[in-house]
Amino acid sequence: MAKVLHSFKITGFGSYLPPKIQTSKELSELINKSEDWIINRTGVLERRISEFDVDKMGAIAAKEAIGSKDKPDLIINASGVPKQTIPDTSIFIQKELGFSKIPSFSVHSTCLSFLTAIKIASSFLKSGLYNKILIVSSDRGSRGRNFNEPESAALLGDAAAAIYLENSNNKSGLINFSMNTFPEGANLTEVRGGGTNLHPQDDITNIDDNLFSMNGPRVYRMARQKVYDLIKQDLRKNKLNPDDINLLIPHQASGIAVKAYSKYGGFNSKKVVDIIDKTGNCVAASIPLALVTAFKQNKINDGDILYLIGTGAGLSIASCLIKY
Amino acid sequence: MAKVLHSFKITGFGSYLPPKIQTSKELSELINKSEDWIINRTGVLERRISEFDVDKMGAIAAKEAIGSKDKPDLIINASGVPKQTIPDTSIFIQKELGFSKIPSFSVHSTCLSFLTAIKIASSFLKSGLYNKILIVSSDRGSRGRNFNEPESAALLGDAAAAIYLENSNNKSGLINFSMNTFPEGANLTEVRGGGTNLHPQDDITNIDDNLFSMNGPRVYRMARQKVYDLIKQDLRKNKLNPDDINLLIPHQASGIAVKAYSKYGGFNSKKVVDIIDKTGNCVAASIPLALVTAFKQNKINDGDILYLIGTGAGLSIASCLIKY
Repeated sequence: MAKVLHSFKITGFGSYLPPKIQTSKELSELINKSEDWIINRTGVLERRISEFDVDKMGAIAAKEAIGSKDKPDLIINASGVPKQTIPDTSIFIQKELGFSKIPSFSVHSTCLSFLTAIKIASSFLKSGLYNKILIVSSDRGSRGRNFNEPESAALLGDAAAAIYLENSNNKSGLINFSMNTFPEGANLTEVRGGGTNLHPQDDITNIDDNLFSMNGPRVYRMARQKVYDLIKQDLRKNKLNPDDINLLIPHQASGIAVKAYSKYGGFNSKKVVDIIDKTGNCVAASIPLALVTAFKQNKINDGDILYLIGTGAGLSIASCLIKY
Repeated sequence: MAKVLHSFKITGFGSYLPPKIQTSKELSELINKSEDWIINRTGVLERRISEFDVDKMGAIAAKEAIGSKDKPDLIINASGVPKQTIPDTSIFIQKELGFSKIPSFSVHSTCLSFLTAIKIASSFLKSGLYNKILIVSSDRGSRGRNFNEPESAALLGDAAAAIYLENSNNKSGLINFSMNTFPEGANLTEVRGGGTNLHPQDDITNIDDNLFSMNGPRVYRMARQKVYDLIKQDLRKNKLNPDDINLLIPHQASGIAVKAYSKYGGFNSKKVVDIIDKTGNCVAASIPLALVTAFKQNKINDGDILYLIGTGAGLSIASCLIKY
């Protein structure tokens, strides 16, 4: 049986889905495409639009995850797009939570930020640096939608999710983490502004540079084989077969991408958490939102093997095998 | 003697200081202050201005750090301001280095990002996830200068630095890491744009929102006592006294802040790496640049105790005790 590399226990979880729903019918007028086109192309029936900014969204999810437990020893923000350039978003989440003197920082690997944060947090717990770590992913992709790019504009939605990790015995925790980055795909998914590259003060910068741009079909073509290779490698390395996975929790990149795990990946579709029709692609919040949704639906039991996997801008692919 | 918590060895280092120098005399005309005002206020005689963007700057430093060694197993970008919002800057550094299929991600705790990355990398090395990790800090603060805010505009300069970390015996590595974040100081150092908060498409957003803003005197007042308390705590916890520290490598926040470590902090000024007069405050690149400069000046010997410490937007304070 697969061995636990970094032991930990998920002792709390929370999520925030903004109450405001935008249906694909409502969106169709904004992007000049039919409701059918949107649903066929993206698999998204409706998405949430947040009135709150990412720090407040993240704090709502975090409060639910903390519940009546102690303040965490560390807060990791693991989101795709920040509230602002400086300070990093972890500060604002901590401020919203009403805490002070807790260390906090952000990690950024776009849609894979939550997996990167689990790798970091579980490593810290193993090495004894901290005992209780809060991970928060909060993204407000609706703010970066480019209505002239209908496919990505139709995919994006807003959400936040958080988990609380603690030290544990050796029975549960991280079995395996894998990640590969292929910078030849760097320009397939971008927000080109927001940094030193195309600064708002530069004459050549235009408003689209601060909006989300994605070549979905090219990402899918580039990623598909790489994701399959990663799955094969993860299973072989950890002596697992698809039936040993109790739940596959993918990034909700698109309807096609989520369904590919069952259609081509060898996993029973009942085991693949698929929430994209009601949430859209929530950037870094998608994987933890899918995880927390599964927790809330009582789909996760002690000892279950969870397989978190996805693609992100970069192009990067990553996966975590977790024994719960 | 202080015990090593995470063993590692720094087996490579590199830095990039752009060739273009801007003296305080040259800058004085741009910010409408005299050369003397600038030097008295900031301690900066000259700073570098990069023609290259952060990814290329970082890659130059990284190539020097890698030298003839193997490709790293992991690249961590630990900078203050990204190249662009998506993908994260690690991707672009990897692309500049000509690598593919190496995992990479970014960490962000503004000027403390390099310390956060050391904590993460050393934890990964200890837990066996990776054997060779490249950390790159690259900041081009000159792009975010607000010439209507003369003090911060005079402080900022451009630089990149990188280190290559490998597994080691137990004799060298991380002795201690400390960090505290005080979100009540979140608005003292900001770039308010670049994220979801004040998006370029919002009517209320103006050009200053994408520039650096810092209340230097208030940061200094808020940070000073907290930094001293941290020093006392670090030394006591690890049974060290100031004389046991061979080299103190501070963030080059300002001339006053660097000199405070000897003036009030109890450290001999010869042991405090002070490069701010020639480089300015290089955001996240300042601490690794000071470290790499000390390496290049043969100021670091086997077995030395290094004390890396600084303040960052947040307000955060952090420190690393390293046995080399």
